[in-house]
Amino acid sequence: MKPLEYCNGILKLIDQTLLPGEHNIVELNNYVEIADAIKNMIVRGAPAIGVTAAYGLAIAAKSINTDSKNEFFDQLKKVCDIIKSTRPTAVNLFWAVDRVYDKAVSNKDKSIEEIKELIETEACLMEKEDVEANRNIGQHGNELIKEGSTILTHCNAGALATCDYGTALGIIRAAHESGKKIQVFADETRPYLQGARLTAWELMQDGIPVTLICDNMAGHFMKEGLIDCVIVGADRIALNGDTANKIGTYSLAVLAKENNIPFYVAAPISTIDFSIKNGDQIPIEERNPIEITHIKGIRIAPEGVNVRNPAFDVTPNKYISAIVTDRGIIYPPYDENIIKYR
Amino acid sequence: MKPLEYCNGILKLIDQTLLPGEHNIVELNNYVEIADAIKNMIVRGAPAIGVTAAYGLAIAAKSINTDSKNEFFDQLKKVCDIIKSTRPTAVNLFWAVDRVYDKAVSNKDKSIEEIKELIETEACLMEKEDVEANRNIGQHGNELIKEGSTILTHCNAGALATCDYGTALGIIRAAHESGKKIQVFADETRPYLQGARLTAWELMQDGIPVTLICDNMAGHFMKEGLIDCVIVGADRIALNGDTANKIGTYSLAVLAKENNIPFYVAAPISTIDFSIKNGDQIPIEERNPIEITHIKGIRIAPEGVNVRNPAFDVTPNKYISAIVTDRGIIYPPYDENIIKYR
Repeated sequence: MKPLEYCNGILKLIDQTLLPGEHNIVELNNYVEIADAIKNMIVRGAPAIGVTAAYGLAIAAKSINTDSKNEFFDQLKKVCDIIKSTRPTAVNLFWAVDRVYDKAVSNKDKSIEEIKELIETEACLMEKEDVEANRNIGQHGNELIKEGSTILTHCNAGALATCDYGTALGIIRAAHESGKKIQVFADETRPYLQGARLTAWELMQDGIPVTLICDNMAGHFMKEGLIDCVIVGADRIALNGDTANKIGTYSLAVLAKENNIPFYVAAPISTIDFSIKNGDQIPIEERNPIEITHIKGIRIAPEGVNVRNPAFDVTPNKYISAIVTDRGIIYPPYDENIIKYR
Repeated sequence: MKPLEYCNGILKLIDQTLLPGEHNIVELNNYVEIADAIKNMIVRGAPAIGVTAAYGLAIAAKSINTDSKNEFFDQLKKVCDIIKSTRPTAVNLFWAVDRVYDKAVSNKDKSIEEIKELIETEACLMEKEDVEANRNIGQHGNELIKEGSTILTHCNAGALATCDYGTALGIIRAAHESGKKIQVFADETRPYLQGARLTAWELMQDGIPVTLICDNMAGHFMKEGLIDCVIVGADRIALNGDTANKIGTYSLAVLAKENNIPFYVAAPISTIDFSIKNGDQIPIEERNPIEITHIKGIRIAPEGVNVRNPAFDVTPNKYISAIVTDRGIIYPPYDENIIKYR
């Protein structure tokens, strides 16, 4: 279920635009294609985007053909900027690119070949760390899950959104593996249908009972008492706990609060943007209207209709019961507690 | 934009499963086909279903070939039961069938031929009354709409859901016709996409500015301050104001309240079920999973996935700012005020 695999300058990605109907692997050997793969959501999910970006830099660094270290760093910096320009909301992208670039800069006294190798090693390390982080998120989060729970999730914060195991689905997997009889309600998550295409599919592969619903049904099932808790991933968390995640998350959080249902965010510490005070400072990506007007190339809305297509929304901290990270569970007051993880 | 047209024993329906891509008219001359058309949502929307059912009875009555009045009423009653069994939630269906049947029974002393004509006349009258009711809803509701408003609507409570003009869209049309510069945000309304396919299309035909969004984006735009009020239709309103409407309505109502946005229900008095005290007594139709797993015959979810597909939800009265009817605006406390319209 790993969405990405790197080996000797080639990054293999499962094409997530085609799942679950087609299981197609794309092989990329240059950063331009990798940037496009991020932009076009062949790979998606904040942690997976971060590691993909890191491998993009490793591959780009290898291809820089110069003896001048200034020239090398100039070119590397340009690649960083191009990769960073692919998607604006998930902070893991910027975090990953900066981490790799900083690693290179802090070793600038080494030879160019050595620096290239260090970059590649750093990317591999980040992949490994991500899987460990998700396992830890799963362990911590499992403490919050009661036997027999029905868990609602949105979008895909699963193995496919990370390097394996998942964040929100990591908690669900950990609960399942620990023997708890849980089941999942998965929002289909329009327009890209990550819930229907990826989350439902992932959980079915693992034998975890899952029921697919439309996004607009979640509130109804909360009111009917069928949902015990909500767990979602995150694309960026501000210092005060405000959380950007897939569009629709804010609505779920409000509905959960209204129905006295705990609402949990699951994310590695790398998803926290320690540079911003609150969610107002998170840029929200607006994507192509065609994602809404067409499904698999078939038009489902009138020609020429005006469309808004924000890919994310921001959930204010007051709706979030806890943030489950790889280093433990963060509870309110977030303005006091998040900073401790810097 | 009339979804139905009756003439000489033939009911013509716009096939709303195909709009806006194809504008196909089906011609039905027997009640079995008409019952199927209701069940399969070729015609949909509570008021349109009611009048379609009435015409179904008129057509069925014509075809009853007997000289025995007992036999005539027995057969008519059976048709009533079959038509009533098509969809459980919208009360207009039951209201319409009962009204036509009661009209027949209260004229049982007349000849069978005369009774057949009275049934047909009653159905025609109900169609005419529905258009008038919508115009009145529009006029009353327009009082609530401020100049320059952005109105969010869900599903299609438009001309296509009625005999013309619409309920929620009736208010929007009245505001537009009165010269107010309004615009509409239309939820696409999964799974059947009435918002994308029907509402956006209807409003574009009338030159009313409309922006199509996914259902899970509505809360985000409310929080961002872009929405001034929400107007939806209704399938059944209980004596205390609890309102069944298209799945997703409850979520919008909670989100509207959380963001201090007025939430209005628009419906003719015939949508009030004076026989039930509250929304708990409203049966919620669960439809075929294929509506969620497939779009236009194309699979968009994993094979074998478990699905829930409730077609409606119930919005508790506390979230509803006002109910706009053809006989005026009903405000809280609904338990006191609705009964006055019996």
